[in-house]
Amino acid sequence: MHELEDLLVALRRFVAEREWSRFHDPKNLAMLIGSEAGELVAEYRWVANDAADALSREPAARARIAAEVGDVGLGLLLLCDRIGLDLFEAMRNKLAVNERKYPVETSRGRSDAPKT
Amino acid sequence: MHELEDLLVALRRFVAEREWSRFHDPKNLAMLIGSEAGELVAEYRWVANDAADALSREPAARARIAAEVGDVGLGLLLLCDRIGLDLFEAMRNKLAVNERKYPVETSRGRSDAPKT
Amino acid sequence: MHELEDLLVALRRFVAEREWSRFHDPKNLAMLIGSEAGELVAEYRWVANDAADALSREPAARARIAAEVGDVGLGLLLLCDRIGLDLFEAMRNKLAVNERKYPVETSRGRSDAPKT
Amino acid sequence: MHELEDLLVALRRFVAEREWSRFHDPKNLAMLIGSEAGELVAEYRWVANDAADALSREPAARARIAAEVGDVGLGLLLLCDRIGLDLFEAMRNKLAVNERKYPVETSRGRSDAPKT
Repeated sequence: MHELEDLLVALRRFVAEREWSRFHDPKNLAMLIGSEAGELVAEYRWVANDAADALSREPAARARIAAEVGDVGLGLLLLCDRIGLDLFEAMRNKLAVNERKYPVETSRGRSDAPKT
Repeated sequence: MHELEDLLVALRRFVAEREWSRFHDPKNLAMLIGSEAGELVAEYRWVANDAADALSREPAARARIAAEVGDVGLGLLLLCDRIGLDLFEAMRNKLAVNERKYPVETSRGRSDAPKT
Repeated sequence: MHELEDLLVALRRFVAEREWSRFHDPKNLAMLIGSEAGELVAEYRWVANDAADALSREPAARARIAAEVGDVGLGLLLLCDRIGLDLFEAMRNKLAVNERKYPVETSRGRSDAPKT
Repeated sequence: MHELEDLLVALRRFVAEREWSRFHDPKNLAMLIGSEAGELVAEYRWVANDAADALSREPAARARIAAEVGDVGLGLLLLCDRIGLDLFEAMRNKLAVNERKYPVETSRGRSDAPKT
Protein backbone atom coordinates (compact mmCIF):
# COMPACT_ATOMS: atom_id res chain seq x y z
CA MET A 1 0.00 0.00 0.00
CA HIS A 2 2.85 2.39 -0.82
CA GLU A 3 0.51 4.51 -2.91
CA LEU A 4 -1.69 5.37 0.08
CA GLU A 5 1.29 5.89 2.38
CA ASP A 6 3.01 8.20 -0.09
CA LEU A 7 -0.15 10.24 -0.51
CA LEU A 8 -0.63 10.48 3.25
CA VAL A 9 2.94 11.75 3.66
CA ALA A 10 2.36 14.43 1.02
CA LEU A 11 -1.03 15.37 2.48
CA ARG A 12 0.34 15.71 6.02
CA ARG A 13 3.17 17.90 4.74
CA PHE A 14 0.71 20.07 2.80
CA VAL A 15 -1.30 20.64 5.99
CA ALA A 16 1.75 21.09 8.25
CA GLU A 17 3.41 23.66 6.00
CA ARG A 18 0.24 25.78 6.07
CA GLU A 19 -0.34 25.20 9.80
CA TRP A 20 -3.87 24.12 9.02
CA SER A 21 -4.15 21.18 11.42
CA ARG A 22 -5.70 23.55 13.94
CA PHE A 23 -8.76 23.75 11.65
CA HIS A 24 -8.90 20.02 11.00
CA ASP A 25 -10.87 18.67 13.92
CA PRO A 26 -13.28 15.88 12.95
CA LYS A 27 -16.33 18.15 12.92
CA ASN A 28 -14.78 20.57 10.45
CA LEU A 29 -13.50 17.71 8.30
CA ALA A 30 -16.98 16.18 8.18
CA MET A 31 -18.19 19.55 6.88
CA LEU A 32 -15.37 19.57 4.32
CA ILE A 33 -16.47 16.15 3.06
CA GLY A 34 -20.11 17.21 3.00
CA SER A 35 -19.46 20.39 1.07
CA GLU A 36 -17.12 18.74 -1.44
CA ALA A 37 -19.67 15.96 -1.96
CA GLY A 38 -22.20 18.71 -2.66
CA GLU A 39 -19.95 20.05 -5.41
CA LEU A 40 -19.77 16.57 -6.93
CA VAL A 41 -23.57 16.36 -6.85
CA ALA A 42 -23.70 19.75 -8.58
CA GLU A 43 -21.73 18.40 -11.54
CA TYR A 44 -24.48 15.89 -12.30
CA ARG A 45 -27.59 17.76 -11.22
CA TRP A 46 -28.92 18.78 -14.62
CA VAL A 47 -27.84 15.80 -16.72
CA ALA A 48 -30.24 12.89 -17.27
CA ASN A 49 -29.33 9.44 -16.04
CA ASP A 50 -28.76 8.15 -19.53
CA ALA A 51 -26.45 11.04 -20.44
CA ALA A 52 -24.34 10.89 -17.28
CA ASP A 53 -21.77 8.46 -18.66
CA ALA A 54 -21.20 10.62 -21.73
CA LEU A 55 -20.85 13.74 -19.56
CA SER A 56 -18.23 11.91 -17.51
CA ARG A 57 -16.14 11.46 -20.67
CA GLU A 58 -16.43 15.06 -21.91
CA PRO A 59 -12.98 16.58 -21.15
CA ALA A 60 -13.97 19.78 -19.32
CA ALA A 61 -16.64 18.07 -17.22
CA ARG A 62 -14.35 15.10 -16.58
CA ALA A 63 -11.64 17.40 -15.20
CA ARG A 64 -14.13 19.03 -12.82
CA ILE A 65 -15.56 15.66 -11.75
CA ALA A 66 -12.06 14.24 -11.14
CA ALA A 67 -11.24 17.33 -9.04
CA GLU A 68 -14.36 16.88 -6.92
CA VAL A 69 -13.73 13.14 -6.51
CA GLY A 70 -10.20 14.05 -5.43
CA ASP A 71 -11.50 16.60 -2.93
CA VAL A 72 -13.95 14.15 -1.32
CA GLY A 73 -11.21 11.50 -1.18
CA LEU A 74 -8.71 13.89 0.40
CA GLY A 75 -11.34 14.87 2.96
CA LEU A 76 -11.84 11.20 3.87
CA LEU A 77 -8.07 10.71 4.21
CA LEU A 78 -7.76 13.77 6.46
CA LEU A 79 -10.60 12.59 8.69
CA CYS A 80 -9.27 9.02 8.89
CA ASP A 81 -5.80 10.32 9.71
CA ARG A 82 -7.19 12.59 12.42
CA ILE A 83 -9.29 9.99 14.20
CA GLY A 84 -7.08 6.97 13.56
CA LEU A 85 -9.29 5.05 11.16
CA ASP A 86 -7.97 2.86 8.34
CA LEU A 87 -9.99 3.95 5.30
CA PHE A 88 -9.64 0.61 3.52
CA GLU A 89 -10.60 -1.33 6.62
CA ALA A 90 -13.65 0.94 7.02
CA MET A 91 -14.67 0.23 3.42
CA ARG A 92 -14.10 -3.53 3.75
CA ASN A 93 -16.09 -3.65 6.98
CA LYS A 94 -18.97 -1.68 5.51
CA LEU A 95 -19.06 -3.87 2.42
CA ALA A 96 -19.28 -6.93 4.69
CA VAL A 97 -22.16 -5.30 6.56
CA ASN A 98 -23.93 -4.54 3.29
CA GLU A 99 -23.48 -8.13 2.13
CA ARG A 100 -25.35 -9.33 5.22
CA LYS A 101 -27.90 -6.52 5.12
CA TYR A 102 -28.85 -7.14 1.49
CA PRO A 103 -28.97 -10.89 0.82
CA VAL A 104 -28.69 -11.76 -2.85
CA GLU A 105 -32.05 -13.55 -2.97
CA THR A 106 -34.14 -10.61 -1.75
CA SER A 107 -32.03 -7.87 -3.38
CA ARG A 108 -31.55 -9.04 -6.94
CA GLY A 109 -32.48 -6.31 -9.40
CA ARG A 110 -34.19 -4.22 -6.74
CA SER A 111 -33.02 -0.74 -5.78
CA ASP A 112 -35.54 -0.86 -2.94
CA ALA A 113 -34.36 -4.18 -1.51
CA PRO A 114 -35.55 -4.65 2.07
CA LYS A 115 -32.84 -4.62 4.74
CA THR A 116 -32.56 -7.73 6.83
CA MET B 1 -1.91 -1.64 -4.33
CA HIS B 2 -3.28 -5.13 -3.77
CA GLU B 3 -5.53 -3.78 -1.02
CA LEU B 4 -7.43 -1.54 -3.42
CA GLU B 5 -7.58 -4.20 -6.13
CA ASP B 6 -8.90 -6.82 -3.72
CA LEU B 7 -11.58 -4.44 -2.47
CA LEU B 8 -12.60 -3.56 -6.02
CA VAL B 9 -12.97 -7.24 -6.88
CA ALA B 10 -15.20 -7.79 -3.85
CA LEU B 11 -17.21 -4.64 -4.54
CA ARG B 12 -17.81 -5.56 -8.18
CA ARG B 13 -18.95 -9.05 -7.15
CA PHE B 14 -21.29 -7.55 -4.53
CA VAL B 15 -22.91 -5.38 -7.21
CA ALA B 16 -22.98 -8.08 -9.89
CA GLU B 17 -24.59 -10.70 -7.64
CA ARG B 18 -27.42 -8.27 -6.87
CA GLU B 19 -27.70 -7.04 -10.48
CA TRP B 20 -27.41 -3.48 -9.23
CA SER B 21 -25.13 -2.07 -11.92
CA ARG B 22 -28.22 -0.91 -13.80
CA PHE B 23 -28.77 1.61 -10.98
CA HIS B 24 -25.15 2.70 -10.82
CA ASP B 25 -24.89 5.35 -13.51
CA PRO B 26 -22.66 8.30 -12.52
CA LYS B 27 -25.59 10.56 -11.61
CA ASN B 28 -27.06 8.08 -9.16
CA LEU B 29 -23.63 7.36 -7.70
CA ALA B 30 -23.03 11.09 -7.15
CA MET B 31 -26.31 11.11 -5.21
CA LEU B 32 -25.16 8.08 -3.22
CA ILE B 33 -21.96 9.91 -2.26
CA GLY B 34 -23.87 13.08 -1.41
CA SER B 35 -26.39 11.31 0.78
CA GLU B 36 -23.78 9.21 2.60
CA ALA B 37 -21.68 12.34 3.19
CA GLY B 38 -24.82 13.88 4.69
CA GLU B 39 -25.03 11.00 7.14
CA LEU B 40 -21.41 11.58 8.13
CA VAL B 41 -22.18 15.27 8.70
CA ALA B 42 -25.14 14.22 10.86
CA GLU B 43 -22.82 12.32 13.22
CA TYR B 44 -21.00 15.52 14.11
CA ARG B 45 -23.75 18.11 13.86
CA TRP B 46 -24.45 18.62 17.57
CA VAL B 47 -20.98 18.14 19.02
CA ALA B 48 -18.73 21.17 19.57
CA ASN B 49 -15.42 21.42 17.74
CA ASP B 50 -13.42 20.76 20.89
CA ALA B 51 -15.44 17.64 21.73
CA ALA B 52 -15.33 16.11 18.25
CA ASP B 53 -12.12 14.15 18.82
CA ALA B 54 -13.49 12.60 22.01
CA LEU B 55 -16.75 11.70 20.25
CA SER B 56 -14.71 9.99 17.53
CA ARG B 57 -13.20 7.69 20.17
CA GLU B 58 -16.47 6.81 21.92
CA PRO B 59 -17.18 3.21 20.78
CA ALA B 60 -20.79 3.50 19.61
CA ALA B 61 -20.21 6.81 17.80
CA ARG B 62 -16.93 5.54 16.36
CA ALA B 63 -18.67 2.51 14.86
CA ARG B 64 -21.28 4.74 13.21
CA ILE B 65 -18.63 7.18 11.95
CA ALA B 66 -16.51 4.34 10.54
CA ALA B 67 -19.59 2.98 8.77
CA GLU B 68 -20.35 6.37 7.19
CA VAL B 69 -16.71 6.85 6.17
CA GLY B 70 -16.87 3.39 4.61
CA ASP B 71 -20.08 4.27 2.77
CA VAL B 72 -18.64 7.47 1.30
CA GLY B 73 -15.46 5.64 0.31
CA LEU B 74 -17.37 2.81 -1.35
CA GLY B 75 -19.42 5.37 -3.24
CA LEU B 76 -16.24 6.99 -4.54
CA LEU B 77 -14.88 3.60 -5.61
CA LEU B 78 -18.09 2.75 -7.43
CA LEU B 79 -18.10 6.09 -9.26
CA CYS B 80 -14.40 5.83 -10.18
CA ASP B 81 -14.92 2.29 -11.42
CA ARG B 82 -17.90 3.35 -13.51
CA ILE B 83 -16.27 6.31 -15.23
CA GLY B 84 -12.74 4.96 -15.39
CA LEU B 85 -11.02 7.26 -12.93
CA ASP B 86 -8.12 6.24 -10.70
CA LEU B 87 -9.11 7.44 -7.23
CA PHE B 88 -5.53 7.79 -6.01
CA GLU B 89 -4.49 9.67 -9.11
CA ALA B 90 -7.48 12.00 -8.68
CA MET B 91 -6.42 12.66 -5.07
CA ARG B 92 -2.78 13.23 -6.00
CA ASN B 93 -3.72 15.60 -8.81
CA LYS B 94 -6.08 17.59 -6.60
CA LEU B 95 -3.46 17.86 -3.88
CA ALA B 96 -1.01 19.23 -6.46
CA VAL B 97 -3.63 21.77 -7.56
CA ASN B 98 -4.22 22.79 -3.94
CA GLU B 99 -0.48 23.21 -3.37
CA ARG B 100 -0.38 25.75 -6.19
CA LYS B 101 -3.68 27.37 -5.28
CA TYR B 102 -2.69 27.94 -1.67
CA PRO B 103 0.97 29.02 -1.50
CA VAL B 104 2.53 28.50 1.91
CA GLU B 105 3.39 32.19 2.39
CA THR B 106 -0.15 33.49 1.95
CA SER B 107 -1.90 30.53 3.53
CA ARG B 108 -0.05 29.89 6.76
CA GLY B 109 -2.42 29.69 9.70
CA ARG B 110 -5.34 31.10 7.69
CA SER B 111 -8.52 29.17 7.02
CA ASP B 112 -9.57 31.99 4.69
CA ALA B 113 -6.35 31.96 2.64
CA PRO B 114 -6.84 33.70 -0.70
CA LYS B 115 -6.69 31.48 -3.78
CA THR B 116 -4.01 32.35 -6.30
CA MET C 1 -47.51 36.33 6.65
CA HIS C 2 -49.34 34.90 9.67
CA GLU C 3 -48.51 31.38 8.52
CA LEU C 4 -44.75 31.96 8.85
CA GLU C 5 -45.11 33.84 12.12
CA ASP C 6 -47.29 31.13 13.64
CA LEU C 7 -44.81 28.46 12.62
CA LEU C 8 -41.90 30.45 14.04
CA VAL C 9 -43.71 30.80 17.36
CA ALA C 10 -44.30 27.05 17.50
CA LEU C 11 -40.72 26.27 16.44
CA ARG C 12 -39.21 28.59 19.04
CA ARG C 13 -41.38 27.02 21.75
CA PHE C 14 -40.36 23.53 20.62
CA VAL C 15 -36.68 24.49 20.98
CA ALA C 16 -37.10 26.43 24.23
CA GLU C 17 -39.03 23.64 25.99
CA ARG C 18 -36.20 21.21 25.19
CA GLU C 19 -33.46 23.74 26.03
CA TRP C 20 -31.89 23.04 22.67
CA SER C 21 -30.92 26.60 21.67
CA ARG C 22 -27.47 25.94 23.15
CA PHE C 23 -26.88 23.50 20.28
CA HIS C 24 -28.30 25.81 17.63
CA ASP C 25 -25.36 28.02 16.71
CA PRO C 26 -25.17 28.78 12.97
CA LYS C 27 -22.45 26.21 12.31
CA ASN C 28 -24.46 23.36 13.79
CA LEU C 29 -27.60 24.52 11.99
CA ALA C 30 -25.74 24.56 8.66
CA MET C 31 -24.80 20.93 9.40
CA LEU C 32 -28.44 20.17 10.21
CA ILE C 33 -29.52 21.60 6.86
CA GLY C 34 -26.75 19.72 5.04
CA SER C 35 -27.57 16.39 6.62
CA GLU C 36 -31.33 16.73 6.10
CA ALA C 37 -30.74 17.72 2.47
CA GLY C 38 -28.66 14.54 2.18
CA GLU C 39 -31.68 12.53 3.35
CA LEU C 40 -33.81 14.19 0.70
CA VAL C 41 -31.21 13.31 -1.94
CA ALA C 42 -31.30 9.72 -0.67
CA GLU C 43 -35.02 9.46 -1.44
CA TYR C 44 -34.39 10.06 -5.13
CA ARG C 45 -30.98 8.43 -5.61
CA TRP C 46 -32.05 5.20 -7.29
CA VAL C 47 -35.05 6.43 -9.28
CA ALA C 48 -34.59 7.53 -12.89
CA ASN C 49 -35.41 11.09 -13.89
CA ASP C 50 -38.51 10.05 -15.78
CA ALA C 51 -39.84 8.05 -12.84
CA ALA C 52 -39.22 10.71 -10.19
CA ASP C 53 -42.61 12.38 -10.55
CA ALA C 54 -44.42 9.07 -10.13
CA LEU C 55 -42.32 8.22 -7.08
CA SER C 56 -43.27 11.58 -5.60
CA ARG C 57 -46.95 10.57 -5.79
CA GLU C 58 -46.53 7.09 -4.30
CA PRO C 59 -47.95 7.43 -0.75
CA ALA C 60 -45.11 5.91 1.30
CA ALA C 61 -42.37 7.70 -0.63
CA ARG C 62 -44.38 10.92 -0.65
CA ALA C 63 -44.67 10.86 3.13
CA ARG C 64 -40.89 10.42 3.48
CA ILE C 65 -40.18 13.13 0.92
CA ALA C 66 -42.56 15.56 2.65
CA ALA C 67 -40.85 14.82 5.97
CA GLU C 68 -37.41 15.55 4.50
CA VAL C 69 -38.65 18.72 2.81
CA GLY C 70 -40.09 19.73 6.17
CA ASP C 71 -36.78 19.02 7.92
CA VAL C 72 -34.75 21.10 5.47
CA GLY C 73 -37.29 23.93 5.72
CA LEU C 74 -37.27 23.86 9.52
CA GLY C 75 -33.47 23.96 9.44
CA LEU C 76 -33.58 27.06 7.25
CA LEU C 77 -36.08 28.72 9.60
CA LEU C 78 -33.91 27.94 12.63
CA LEU C 79 -30.80 29.35 10.95
CA CYS C 80 -32.62 32.49 9.73
CA ASP C 81 -34.07 33.04 13.18
CA ARG C 82 -30.64 32.63 14.79
CA ILE C 83 -28.78 35.01 12.54
CA GLY C 84 -31.58 37.49 11.89
CA LEU C 85 -32.24 36.79 8.23
CA ASP C 86 -35.65 37.04 6.59
CA LEU C 87 -35.99 33.79 4.63
CA PHE C 88 -38.38 35.26 2.08
CA GLU C 89 -36.21 38.31 1.53
CA ALA C 90 -33.19 36.02 1.05
CA MET C 91 -35.10 34.03 -1.57
CA ARG C 92 -36.36 37.16 -3.36
CA ASN C 93 -32.87 38.67 -3.41
CA LYS C 94 -31.30 35.48 -4.75
CA LEU C 95 -33.94 35.18 -7.45
CA ALA C 96 -33.15 38.76 -8.52
CA VAL C 97 -29.45 37.87 -8.65
CA ASN C 98 -30.22 34.78 -10.74
CA GLU C 99 -32.34 36.84 -13.13
CA ARG C 100 -29.32 39.06 -13.82
CA LYS C 101 -26.81 36.19 -13.85
CA TYR C 102 -28.78 34.16 -16.37
CA PRO C 103 -30.23 36.47 -19.03
CA VAL C 104 -33.12 34.94 -20.94
CA GLU C 105 -31.41 35.21 -24.32
CA THR C 106 -28.32 33.20 -23.38
CA SER C 107 -30.06 30.81 -21.01
CA ARG C 108 -33.12 29.62 -22.89
CA GLY C 109 -33.35 25.82 -22.89
CA ARG C 110 -29.78 25.41 -21.62
CA SER C 111 -28.92 23.79 -18.31
CA ASP C 112 -25.33 24.89 -18.87
CA ALA C 113 -26.16 28.54 -19.52
CA PRO C 114 -23.10 30.76 -19.08
CA LYS C 115 -23.15 33.13 -16.11
CA THR C 116 -22.85 36.79 -16.98
CA MET D 1 -49.59 34.31 2.54
CA HIS D 2 -49.26 36.85 -0.29
CA GLU D 3 -45.48 36.91 0.19
CA LEU D 4 -45.14 33.22 -0.72
CA GLU D 5 -47.61 33.47 -3.58
CA ASP D 6 -45.86 36.50 -5.05
CA LEU D 7 -42.51 34.75 -4.85
CA LEU D 8 -43.92 31.63 -6.49
CA VAL D 9 -45.30 33.69 -9.36
CA ALA D 10 -41.90 35.32 -9.92
CA LEU D 11 -40.08 32.00 -9.61
CA ARG D 12 -42.36 30.27 -12.10
CA ARG D 13 -41.90 33.12 -14.55
CA PHE D 14 -38.11 32.97 -14.12
CA VAL D 15 -38.16 29.26 -14.99
CA ALA D 16 -40.68 29.57 -17.83
CA GLU D 17 -38.83 32.41 -19.56
CA ARG D 18 -35.67 30.28 -19.62
CA GLU D 19 -37.54 27.09 -20.58
CA TRP D 20 -35.89 25.32 -17.68
CA SER D 21 -38.85 23.30 -16.42
CA ARG D 22 -37.64 20.38 -18.56
CA PHE D 23 -34.65 20.11 -16.19
CA HIS D 24 -36.73 20.44 -13.04
CA ASP D 25 -37.92 16.94 -12.39
CA PRO D 26 -37.93 16.02 -8.68
CA LYS D 27 -34.68 14.05 -8.85
CA ASN D 28 -32.75 16.97 -10.33
CA LEU D 29 -34.31 19.38 -7.85
CA ALA D 30 -33.30 17.16 -4.94
CA MET D 31 -29.75 17.37 -6.30
CA LEU D 32 -30.09 21.16 -6.55
CA ILE D 33 -31.11 21.33 -2.90
CA GLY D 34 -28.31 18.97 -1.86
CA SER D 35 -25.63 20.89 -3.72
CA GLU D 36 -26.81 24.29 -2.50
CA ALA D 37 -26.96 22.97 1.07
CA GLY D 38 -23.35 21.84 0.55
CA GLU D 39 -22.40 25.41 -0.32
CA LEU D 40 -24.06 26.63 2.86
CA VAL D 41 -22.09 24.04 4.86
CA ALA D 42 -18.92 25.29 3.15
CA GLU D 43 -19.47 28.80 4.53
CA TYR D 44 -19.22 27.53 8.09
CA ARG D 45 -16.74 24.66 7.73
CA TRP D 46 -13.65 26.36 9.15
CA VAL D 47 -15.21 28.60 11.77
CA ALA D 48 -15.50 27.37 15.36
CA ASN D 49 -18.90 27.02 16.96
CA ASP D 50 -18.37 30.00 19.23
CA ALA D 51 -17.32 32.23 16.32
CA ALA D 52 -20.17 31.25 13.98
CA ASP D 53 -22.55 33.99 15.16
CA ALA D 54 -19.92 36.68 14.63
CA LEU D 55 -19.14 35.32 11.17
CA SER D 56 -22.84 35.50 10.33
CA ARG D 57 -22.76 39.26 11.06
CA GLU D 58 -19.61 40.03 9.05
CA PRO D 59 -20.92 41.76 5.88
CA ALA D 60 -19.14 39.77 3.16
CA ALA D 61 -19.81 36.40 4.81
CA ARG D 62 -23.37 37.42 5.62
CA ALA D 63 -24.06 38.22 1.97
CA ARG D 64 -22.74 34.81 0.90
CA ILE D 65 -24.69 33.01 3.64
CA ALA D 66 -27.91 34.85 2.71
CA ALA D 67 -27.36 33.88 -0.93
CA GLU D 68 -26.93 30.20 -0.01
CA VAL D 69 -29.96 30.27 2.28
CA GLY D 70 -31.88 31.81 -0.61
CA ASP D 71 -30.68 29.11 -2.99
CA VAL D 72 -31.72 26.26 -0.68
CA GLY D 73 -35.08 27.93 -0.09
CA LEU D 74 -35.70 28.43 -3.80
CA GLY D 75 -34.80 24.78 -4.39
CA LEU D 76 -37.40 23.73 -1.82
CA LEU D 77 -40.03 25.96 -3.45
CA LEU D 78 -39.27 24.53 -6.89
CA LEU D 79 -39.53 20.95 -5.60
CA CYS D 80 -42.74 21.64 -3.67
CA ASP D 81 -44.26 23.35 -6.71
CA ARG D 82 -43.30 20.41 -8.94
CA ILE D 83 -44.69 17.65 -6.75
CA GLY D 84 -47.63 19.57 -5.29
CA LEU D 85 -46.49 19.88 -1.70
CA ASP D 86 -47.30 22.84 0.54
CA LEU D 87 -43.94 23.80 2.09
CA PHE D 88 -45.48 25.33 5.20
CA GLU D 89 -47.74 22.35 5.75
CA ALA D 90 -44.71 20.05 5.36
CA MET D 91 -42.84 22.06 8.00
CA ARG D 92 -45.81 22.15 10.39
CA ASN D 93 -46.36 18.41 10.02
CA LYS D 94 -42.69 17.61 10.61
CA LEU D 95 -42.59 19.85 13.68
CA ALA D 96 -45.60 17.98 15.06
CA VAL D 97 -43.80 14.67 14.42
CA ASN D 98 -40.70 15.97 16.18
CA GLU D 99 -42.75 17.09 19.17
CA ARG D 100 -44.00 13.54 19.60
CA LYS D 101 -40.64 11.94 18.81
CA TYR D 102 -38.74 14.03 21.33
CA PRO D 103 -40.84 14.39 24.50
CA VAL D 104 -39.76 17.33 26.66
CA GLU D 105 -38.99 15.16 29.68
CA THR D 106 -36.46 12.91 27.95
CA SER D 107 -35.04 15.55 25.61
CA ARG D 108 -34.35 18.54 27.83
CA GLY D 109 -30.80 19.79 27.33
CA ARG D 110 -29.75 16.68 25.42
CA SER D 111 -28.57 16.76 21.81
CA ASP D 112 -28.61 12.96 21.88
CA ALA D 113 -32.18 12.65 23.16
CA PRO D 114 -33.60 9.19 22.50
CA LYS D 115 -36.40 8.97 19.95
CA THR D 116 -39.66 7.56 21.24
